[in-house]
Amino acid sequence: MLYGIIEAGGTKFICGVADENQIIERISIETTTPQKTMPDVIAFFKKFDIVSLAIGCFGPIDIRKNSPTYGYILQTPKIAWQQYNFLGEMQTHFDIPMFWETDVNVAAFGEFVLGAAKDAKSCLYLTIGTGVGGGYCANGAFLPTLLHPEMGHIHLKRLDGDSFEGSCPFHDDCVEGLVSGPAIEKRAGKKAEEIPEDDIIWEMVARYIAQALQTYTMVVSPEKIILGGGVMKREHLYPLVRKYFLEYINGYIDFEALGVTMDTYIIAPQMPDYSATYGCVELAKRLVK
Amino acid sequence: MLYGIIEAGGTKFICGVADENQIIERISIETTTPQKTMPDVIAFFKKFDIVSLAIGCFGPIDIRKNSPTYGYILQTPKIAWQQYNFLGEMQTHFDIPMFWETDVNVAAFGEFVLGAAKDAKSCLYLTIGTGVGGGYCANGAFLPTLLHPEMGHIHLKRLDGDSFEGSCPFHDDCVEGLVSGPAIEKRAGKKAEEIPEDDIIWEMVARYIAQALQTYTMVVSPEKIILGGGVMKREHLYPLVRKYFLEYINGYIDFEALGVTMDTYIIAPQMPDYSATYGCVELAKRLVK
Repeated sequence: MLYGIIEAGGTKFICGVADENQIIERISIETTTPQKTMPDVIAFFKKFDIVSLAIGCFGPIDIRKNSPTYGYILQTPKIAWQQYNFLGEMQTHFDIPMFWETDVNVAAFGEFVLGAAKDAKSCLYLTIGTGVGGGYCANGAFLPTLLHPEMGHIHLKRLDGDSFEGSCPFHDDCVEGLVSGPAIEKRAGKKAEEIPEDDIIWEMVARYIAQALQTYTMVVSPEKIILGGGVMKREHLYPLVRKYFLEYINGYIDFEALGVTMDTYIIAPQMPDYSATYGCVELAKRLVK
Repeated sequence: MLYGIIEAGGTKFICGVADENQIIERISIETTTPQKTMPDVIAFFKKFDIVSLAIGCFGPIDIRKNSPTYGYILQTPKIAWQQYNFLGEMQTHFDIPMFWETDVNVAAFGEFVLGAAKDAKSCLYLTIGTGVGGGYCANGAFLPTLLHPEMGHIHLKRLDGDSFEGSCPFHDDCVEGLVSGPAIEKRAGKKAEEIPEDDIIWEMVARYIAQALQTYTMVVSPEKIILGGGVMKREHLYPLVRKYFLEYINGYIDFEALGVTMDTYIIAPQMPDYSATYGCVELAKRLVK
């Protein structure tokens, strides 16, 4: 049996097909407009006899099954995709069971089932890249939400003296506006991957990420926090984030008494470029089992 | 069959016994020390032939079933109760199934099963009183957490010009430190229930609560938010909180498109003084079914 998967991201769509054991083919298609991108997506899957399809899509999307716009992309800044009936379009071409979720939730699911959180009962996955998004998975399921989580848009407390204007059009001081790749580039005048490890900017970035993680921990207290995305490819960030996280917790949670060390609590994805792919494969399999 | 329940709060323990249909007896015992309070609790339940017991306890508590200190109260400011093996003590006296959770989680559960959120798939319950605590319940279950939620201790962004020192010993500017009953009293110089409705302080309190709710919504996006506790008995706060909540959301979530109005999203508990009681009764029943 063959299973289809789509990771629909803001810059590229990754489409793939897997059998029971492995990924057979995986391609990348540029995200432009539905009129240009979707025919290529559909043509790819027409080559295979897939039995189910799991889609992890950039948000905001409508994931409420009883909603008239279930399967739609909602008010995204990518204007061409606003109110696009993504799931409906796929169902026109493929009469098979489909799963519809956010891209970060399927990545969280992948790491939960097969990756860095596979021994945990719950995990929070935060991707810090072009945007900042969070997914959450507990006991192998997603939360029944009104909208999906929008964890990149919680507000942070500014560090003293930080007057950077941020990069989010909606919020002065949200996580995405302060530590996404574009925010770091705007602040530093160069891309995150070009900034030296000892640049003082990383202290600031790590403090803001740590502050966000403190909030998530107070709200859902996950057993694992996984930090992924392009910005976190700068691996020197992990120990900095762990250090400042404990500073912000300020003894309020006694991690030592809970038997939890920071290097097992705030961790990297085990499948950095494949979390969402494997999450989708597993979700597609479950649709027919 | 008779079911036992304990709402163990910081100032009083409510102990009760219910049959299938109703609460038969419900008493209040002052929270002093384990040596003084617990014998009264045990004596109360010895009068009945209860088949199970559900306990909702003030935190922090250890709720990890595989932990050696499962059932203990952890590092609470109430020194006499630190490291107290609450569940173990009850099990010494009663050889019956027991359920152990935080007081706010069982209140969330009560409102989810029988109250204001009974038509929702998920709800967040925030109690604003002597402290500020949050519970969360989805599909009739609690999250598998490392610790339990500590929602009252997320940090807030200070309103311009607000130099109030706060009332939380751990955090300068957390929800509990800014809007709990003692925080309001410290700021105003009189008790929350004595402050007139048109006092400017309520605008500030409502803004801080709204900011906290915005964060919770971005992280877990519950279908309902229930605001309870002593401070929320000042009912004029609800419309103010709803107004400022929408201001903080700033159009990022289109509630209208989701078919959600604020007066059905941010709501009062349906069983203000009984949420936790009925939550515990239901949990105690499930232990033997």
